[in-house]
Amino acid sequence: MKTDIIVIGAGPVGLFTVFEAGILGLNCVLIDNLDKPGGQCAELYPDKPIYDIPGVPYQTGQEHVDALLKQIEPFDYKLLLNQRVDEIRNVGDSWEVKTSENNKIESKNIFIAAGAGSFEPIKPNLQSDFSNFEGQDIFYSVKDKNELKDKCVTIFGGGDSALDWTIELSKICKELILIHRRDAFRGAPDSEKKVRKLHQDGKIKLLTPYILQSIQGDKTVESLSLLNTETKEVHSIETEKILFFYGLNKKLGPILDWNLDVEKNKILVNTENFETNQEGIFAVGDINTYPGKLNLILSGFHETTLAVQKAFTRINPGERVPFGYTTSSTSIHEKLGLKNT
Amino acid sequence: MKTDIIVIGAGPVGLFTVFEAGILGLNCVLIDNLDKPGGQCAELYPDKPIYDIPGVPYQTGQEHVDALLKQIEPFDYKLLLNQRVDEIRNVGDSWEVKTSENNKIESKNIFIAAGAGSFEPIKPNLQSDFSNFEGQDIFYSVKDKNELKDKCVTIFGGGDSALDWTIELSKICKELILIHRRDAFRGAPDSEKKVRKLHQDGKIKLLTPYILQSIQGDKTVESLSLLNTETKEVHSIETEKILFFYGLNKKLGPILDWNLDVEKNKILVNTENFETNQEGIFAVGDINTYPGKLNLILSGFHETTLAVQKAFTRINPGERVPFGYTTSSTSIHEKLGLKNT
Ligand SMILES: Cc1cc2nc3c(=O)[nH]c(=O)nc-3n(C[C@H](O)[C@H](O)[C@H](O)COP(=O)(O)OP(=O)(O)OC[C@H]3O[C@@H](n4cnc5c(N)ncnc54)[C@H](O)[C@@H]3O)c2cc1C
Ligand SMILES: Cc1cc2nc3c(=O)[nH]c(=O)nc-3n(C[C@H](O)[C@H](O)[C@H](O)COP(=O)(O)OP(=O)(O)OC[C@H]3O[C@@H](n4cnc5c(N)ncnc54)[C@H](O)[C@@H]3O)c2cc1C
Repeated sequence: MKTDIIVIGAGPVGLFTVFEAGILGLNCVLIDNLDKPGGQCAELYPDKPIYDIPGVPYQTGQEHVDALLKQIEPFDYKLLLNQRVDEIRNVGDSWEVKTSENNKIESKNIFIAAGAGSFEPIKPNLQSDFSNFEGQDIFYSVKDKNELKDKCVTIFGGGDSALDWTIELSKICKELILIHRRDAFRGAPDSEKKVRKLHQDGKIKLLTPYILQSIQGDKTVESLSLLNTETKEVHSIETEKILFFYGLNKKLGPILDWNLDVEKNKILVNTENFETNQEGIFAVGDINTYPGKLNLILSGFHETTLAVQKAFTRINPGERVPFGYTTSSTSIHEKLGLKNT
Repeated sequence: MKTDIIVIGAGPVGLFTVFEAGILGLNCVLIDNLDKPGGQCAELYPDKPIYDIPGVPYQTGQEHVDALLKQIEPFDYKLLLNQRVDEIRNVGDSWEVKTSENNKIESKNIFIAAGAGSFEPIKPNLQSDFSNFEGQDIFYSVKDKNELKDKCVTIFGGGDSALDWTIELSKICKELILIHRRDAFRGAPDSEKKVRKLHQDGKIKLLTPYILQSIQGDKTVESLSLLNTETKEVHSIETEKILFFYGLNKKLGPILDWNLDVEKNKILVNTENFETNQEGIFAVGDINTYPGKLNLILSGFHETTLAVQKAFTRINPGERVPFGYTTSSTSIHEKLGLKNT
């Protein structure tokens, strides 16, 4: 696959890059480790207000993401989700990235819009390795709930994801067990109420305060050992599939291996076009740093707009970047199916 | 008068400065030569769309200004309209500005958000001086229409302002004459239709194609000499008040006298805090320049946000600028009368 700009990270700044690229006639491929676009806004505070998007007195995190998605709708872009960019390597005068799903994409321009790093599920801390079960019997999110139909499923966690999926999956699983290390939940009180009712009605099992000690199984998961943290007793339960909803960590991860100048976990850029020390690799939004830098969404918008100018000249060497106001931009009017006036 | 930040220009960037200052507890006085806030958006393209305000897929120029005004509503600020900032001078470790209305304001921080310069009415090009009548019998905008009640009023111009005020003032003036150098109008066809109907009904006089040659009068305006550009005949008409709606020019004007480093009519700034060569004087939005600069509203928002950080430290030396997301900002929540959650 080839594209004009590869954007690593589909947070607000990555999304707006599609717009600024689009009005210069460039297309983008966006890659994100999460299962949805929106970065921190969508993952960490979808229902909370943002007051400082200029010209928008009030918008929740999710509303902001939705507005950006609407704004880039007229333009060509591909969104690759559920995969992390692991490698960037030089091929001729271009770059190639490889994702954890083994997708390879080539481009003259890489925009790292990776925020504070990729969101990675927090995994249980067990003595023996269980990675062979991951993606088969052990999951950190639900991609297709039909795979769990008529199965014995165990969910770990105490937040909204754990509660919501318990309610949802109780309708289709053969057996569902929710396990949490305390008898109190961090999720919405209303969801907690529903879960406790399901338990009282015998539709699910609720085990608290328990922690996981080990997972047993040969080719597939067969059973779990659990420690009751009050009585110190150890129990074993049978299960087929396990879901861990322990939350997400932000990890810089592979970014540190890409030969970029980094200072305190932030990528150093210039303020003319937000390019890094590697030509054709730009860093925009929370992931970058320069004198005066603030981790604000509005700054990322400015940064990526200037960076796209340079990306254009790398694709069209010698050409002047066409500057125009969107008010009178033919490309926007055409994309929106409007007549230019 | 004293304030934390004096903002010269109430365009979009000047307006958003009030927001960023506000969340750091600083207040602003905004000064603009126009009779309304909004700069180019409100003056040049109120009804045209802007597509590149990030997170706002579609907004007209005026809608954008209205949204910004709503966004800064919670904060303290003063808006001084219809006056140009003519002078800036050093007083101790502060600055003092003087406006064309002789207002003097003192502040540690001056933000020049002057766009492409102040909007100034285009004046008629006459041989003899008429400045002694300005503000008394000759006007370029209507501040209080009651001053024109029961008077003989002559309007010059062919755009929307000329047409709209002709319609409006025909209801209260003793006599109203509209004069234009061609028999076609640039304003809305609907308004033109109304004006021609008023003329047919004898409610106003419409004189085309005429141009003004001279104004006569001793202490007050008494009469005008008009040249018919087709017949070359000269007519004299009596009148008391004259309104010129010849449009606006953008003039850098006094800005060039403030000892600032300027390049191609733009003020040079650094990209860390957008300060000029004079400490405490910042330039933000279209008026400034630096490597990579684009004349876009979204860039001005970023610039003024960073500049406000430095303004804060000039007012509170030695204090760290409190950084917080608006999502969890106590000052915003308090201002909006919300409880912080
Ligand atoms: C509670 C809270 C409130 C906030 N309130 C405000 C506010 O009021 N105003 C404001 O301006 N800002 C606010 N912020 C900050 C704002 O959310 C960030 O500035 C913004 O999200 C940064 O956008 P971004 O696009 O740079 O990165 P992010 O939103 O962090 O998105 C980066 C994306 O890149 C992905 N990624 C990273 N590395 C890789 C990789 N190697 N492969 C694939 N994907 C990868 C991540 O999974 C993530 O989805 C708030 C933040 C929080 C947590
Ligand atoms: C037709 C058109 C379409 C546009 N479309 C877009 C678009 O789609 N996207 C985009 O980002 N930008 C667009 N722009 C540009 C955008 O309007 C400017 O970038 C923006 O207005 C700059 O804001 P500002 O606050 O810096 O200055 P301005 O909006 O120019 O406001 C400056 C104000 O300062 C006042 N002033 C100046 N000097 C003085 C003084 N000495 N005393 C008192 N007052 C003074 C002026 O009267 C004016 O009101 C467009 C512009 C035009 C003309």
